Amino acid sequence: MALSFVTTNEGKFREAQQVASEFGIELEHVPLPYLEIQSDKLEDIAKVGAQQAYAMLKRPCFVEDSGLFIEALKGFPGAFSSYVFKTIGNLGILKLMEGIENRRAEFKSSVGYCERETEVFIFTGIVKGRISTEIRGEKGFGYDPIFIPDGEKRTFAELSTQEKNVLSHRGKALRSFLSWLVARS
Amino acid sequence: MALSFVTTNEGKFREAQQVASEFGIELEHVPLPYLEIQSDKLEDIAKVGAQQAYAMLKRPCFVEDSGLFIEALKGFPGAFSSYVFKTIGNLGILKLMEGIENRRAEFKSSVGYCERETEVFIFTGIVKGRISTEIRGEKGFGYDPIFIPDGEKRTFAELSTQEKNVLSHRGKALRSFLSWLVARS
Repeated sequence: MALSFVTTNEGKFREAQQVASEFGIELEHVPLPYLEIQSDKLEDIAKVGAQQAYAMLKRPCFVEDSGLFIEALKGFPGAFSSYVFKTIGNLGILKLMEGIENRRAEFKSSVGYCERETEVFIFTGIVKGRISTEIRGEKGFGYDPIFIPDGEKRTFAELSTQEKNVLSHRGKALRSFLSWLVARS
Repeated sequence: MALSFVTTNEGKFREAQQVASEFGIELEHVPLPYLEIQSDKLEDIAKVGAQQAYAMLKRPCFVEDSGLFIEALKGFPGAFSSYVFKTIGNLGILKLMEGIENRRAEFKSSVGYCERETEVFIFTGIVKGRISTEIRGEKGFGYDPIFIPDGEKRTFAELSTQEKNVLSHRGKALRSFLSWLVARS
């Protein structure tokens, strides 16, 4: 039986599908929106989201929430990354970073998995890196064109889905979730 | 009997108290946090917030949610104003606005009032104005030092609480709420 990934973001589903295939797991894309609480903790957003998604579907499912945390901006845009992207976008972030020497940042991802009402399992992945000085690359989505992971010269948007998944926060969180799921079954 | 205002923001309570006194209404400050949903609609945040607050207190109470919407930034920081303030702050907003000619912005406020589980009344206030080019004034809180309401040369942070309440989004939303409450009783 396919495992349901509840997300309205097609880029996320594409990445998750590639990781799931490494485990021989088939994913079903459920493009439904769910309640996102206003919290600066991704884990809490994923937890409540997974419960909401389960309440709608009544079958085992997971959600994923992620954010870009920039050190010099006190963690901005963090858990509000998607809203900030839709408004000021990558150009806004580069403008905020003008003249700032410390360009350290990290992407975090939290996967929330729910298979009955009372229980949610949370899996987290982090990738450290830095904010580029210009927009580069056209793959991926969101902040990918301005994030360079440690050990790379290219931004996430210059990597293939497979290359990105090896390094990325989302790839790590998903692999940690799916390893657990496989080991348990 | 005093009317309960559920907010962790003392500046908001101070302003509301001054408006309520115009109506001969006494306010009680309940500094409890409540669930804020991640939505870009203030009305929805106030609605769910008021229901949550009522569920905790079991007596008539209201919450207030507000945001600064900047035209040239597609409404940023909007419903996420408080998080954005805590991270990039007024200096961040001024930096994003550097070189941008259109400085139009508006403050919106939504009051949510709940007196039984199933019913929430929403009251909204708006003030139009512009973003200043520098931080000015020390009164008020949040974005007050960078917002100049239409018809004024001073920022909100250069006005007294009473002067601000006449013009402000929050003053308008609260007066609309309290007039309704008084007329109904």
